[in-house]
Amino acid sequence: MGLDSLITPACLIDEAKFSANAERMKKHVSAQGVAFRPHVKTLKSLQAAHYYAPADMPITVSTLAEAEYFASAGYTDILYAVTLTPNKLEQTQLLLAQGVKLTVLIDSLDACEMLVSRWRSACSLAVALEVDVDDHRAGLKPDLPLLLEIAQRLEEARSLSFAGVVAHAGASYGCFTDDARRTMAEQEVSRILLAVSRLNAAGIACPMVSVGSTPTALSDVSRKGITELRAGVYATFDCVMAGLGVCQFDDIAMSVLTTVIGTQPDKGQVLIDAGWMALSRDQGTASHDVDCGYGLVCDELGNILDGWYVSQTNQEHGIISHMHNPNATVEAFSYGHRLRILPIHACATAAQFPSYYLVRDNTVAESWPRISGW
Amino acid sequence: MGLDSLITPACLIDEAKFSANAERMKKHVSAQGVAFRPHVKTLKSLQAAHYYAPADMPITVSTLAEAEYFASAGYTDILYAVTLTPNKLEQTQLLLAQGVKLTVLIDSLDACEMLVSRWRSACSLAVALEVDVDDHRAGLKPDLPLLLEIAQRLEEARSLSFAGVVAHAGASYGCFTDDARRTMAEQEVSRILLAVSRLNAAGIACPMVSVGSTPTALSDVSRKGITELRAGVYATFDCVMAGLGVCQFDDIAMSVLTTVIGTQPDKGQVLIDAGWMALSRDQGTASHDVDCGYGLVCDELGNILDGWYVSQTNQEHGIISHMHNPNATVEAFSYGHRLRILPIHACATAAQFPSYYLVRDNTVAESWPRISGW
Repeated sequence: MGLDSLITPACLIDEAKFSANAERMKKHVSAQGVAFRPHVKTLKSLQAAHYYAPADMPITVSTLAEAEYFASAGYTDILYAVTLTPNKLEQTQLLLAQGVKLTVLIDSLDACEMLVSRWRSACSLAVALEVDVDDHRAGLKPDLPLLLEIAQRLEEARSLSFAGVVAHAGASYGCFTDDARRTMAEQEVSRILLAVSRLNAAGIACPMVSVGSTPTALSDVSRKGITELRAGVYATFDCVMAGLGVCQFDDIAMSVLTTVIGTQPDKGQVLIDAGWMALSRDQGTASHDVDCGYGLVCDELGNILDGWYVSQTNQEHGIISHMHNPNATVEAFSYGHRLRILPIHACATAAQFPSYYLVRDNTVAESWPRISGW
Repeated sequence: MGLDSLITPACLIDEAKFSANAERMKKHVSAQGVAFRPHVKTLKSLQAAHYYAPADMPITVSTLAEAEYFASAGYTDILYAVTLTPNKLEQTQLLLAQGVKLTVLIDSLDACEMLVSRWRSACSLAVALEVDVDDHRAGLKPDLPLLLEIAQRLEEARSLSFAGVVAHAGASYGCFTDDARRTMAEQEVSRILLAVSRLNAAGIACPMVSVGSTPTALSDVSRKGITELRAGVYATFDCVMAGLGVCQFDDIAMSVLTTVIGTQPDKGQVLIDAGWMALSRDQGTASHDVDCGYGLVCDELGNILDGWYVSQTNQEHGIISHMHNPNATVEAFSYGHRLRILPIHACATAAQFPSYYLVRDNTVAESWPRISGW
């Protein structure tokens, strides 16, 4: 099936780039001598996961809906990497009753006490503690007495077990050089290991010592003491990752196929049928040296059209203009022509689509459904 | 069913506010003495539309998927308000073959020629021309000779008919006073009527003269010569509309129910389980006097907690802080407590959910599915 048969906007995955990105991480993690637990939150698709996270691998999920979806396809070792809330206890129990080895995350005594008082199940729940390694968002500082107190409380509680520690160096999204990312990766390792050594000294074992974000996971640092790496967006990449220097723009495996619906030559603008409903409202490169707006423009085959980007979006309208020349001639664009837009943030763009089209040799090879919701 | 039984994040519609907003527009349009064609793109839900656009009313849609969904429920008079592309011809034909009175929109000779050469159907396609009334996005300037040329070409073409003219004063989203909105509403009317008078003078009838955006539709100006008003977001409203002064924050009928997952007292931050996957990445009030970030914070019953807003979002994490006091005490928020977040842009937030919960007297009365895609 040709690209011209698709209704636009449509979300495309370039198979060659997708495979190459997956292979790059696989080789890197293997060279780092550590296990890998991919995050499936970017595409939330079984067919996509076959390329980078087959069912015999441990995975990370961002919602229990993802956990249910992947569990139903045979995935058994799942880390739910967002603090568990009381209203998700029943979903959690059902997953354990299915035989899933689910690990949940908390970072407070209040959450621990909620589990101690409310977890009533024949299955023991594995609970990991989130450690704050970069002062970025959530987690317990590794030197806090509270860390030991909560781990101890989990060890003593009936039907709960302390699974270990988990960290995510989200601050790596502000690291624009290899050196800065390496420093952040070393910090991620050293701070979580401080937590581990304190737990061990208190006689508490730490079976899981899990770190990762795409920028830090791809750094080459010692992983001694780390049991697993996590990363998610590396299989597609996006303009944010390219802007950081983690990949090249040409490595980006996801794009949104769109059609030109008009031009405004006096304004140097081209209108397309991909607005924020297709591209998302993410403007994650606004603080980068190159602000890619709502996405970079490529021709139908995926070749980047230098300087052209989506500068504005409404619900179903996107406006393309030239970064450096607001009066650029738009003659090369005409009604009905197809273009591809490289996403700013692949997780956000993917979430706008019910399914993706796998593109092989510039034809549509497969359609991959995805899931949404919580 | 109580709110405590919902898995968070969840999208709520407050029935009392939703009904009041719908009634306000209904009365206003009636007083303006003009027909009404609501836009269903905000909620894309049949159950929601029953409150403001029952099946005997003409409607506006933003995708042909919406047209198919509403047509299958008995809606017959549908305006598709985004320029038609060649790859959507087959969807269009199927809708007409079902007996839907579908009107499509174009704004160029290229699009007209595409339809003339490729529209092959037993059913005649009604084609409206988009008129640019505010130099905002798309459409033909009302004084262009091209306007007459395209209308003439449509009149002469077999199986096509010229339906009339459509305008959308998107620039009204930059109007922060009643006066500014009234001026914009008058401009919307006068400029589209200029197009109508030129068409009429050339002997071309204009059955449809359609204008509207929520801010201009709610203005009180003469609608003489206008056949219908359009508006969409008015039934829920959102922080953008409240920031413009079109409604009060307390009129906003949509909210996202969320759970506190942690606090960072030293940073004055509260973490919730609603990130951009639930709230969207829309920051439509960033240029307003009051930047509401990713949403305003209310207690579980919907009472606004003055000054608290969602200042940052990641995929499944939202961070609440105080607008005016970065060191505000977060003691009032604790793990497991439920809050509601008022959306910045209801269309964008709604799009993140597969369904909504209708709330009546602070209990869940119904669940309303919605559609997505194109």
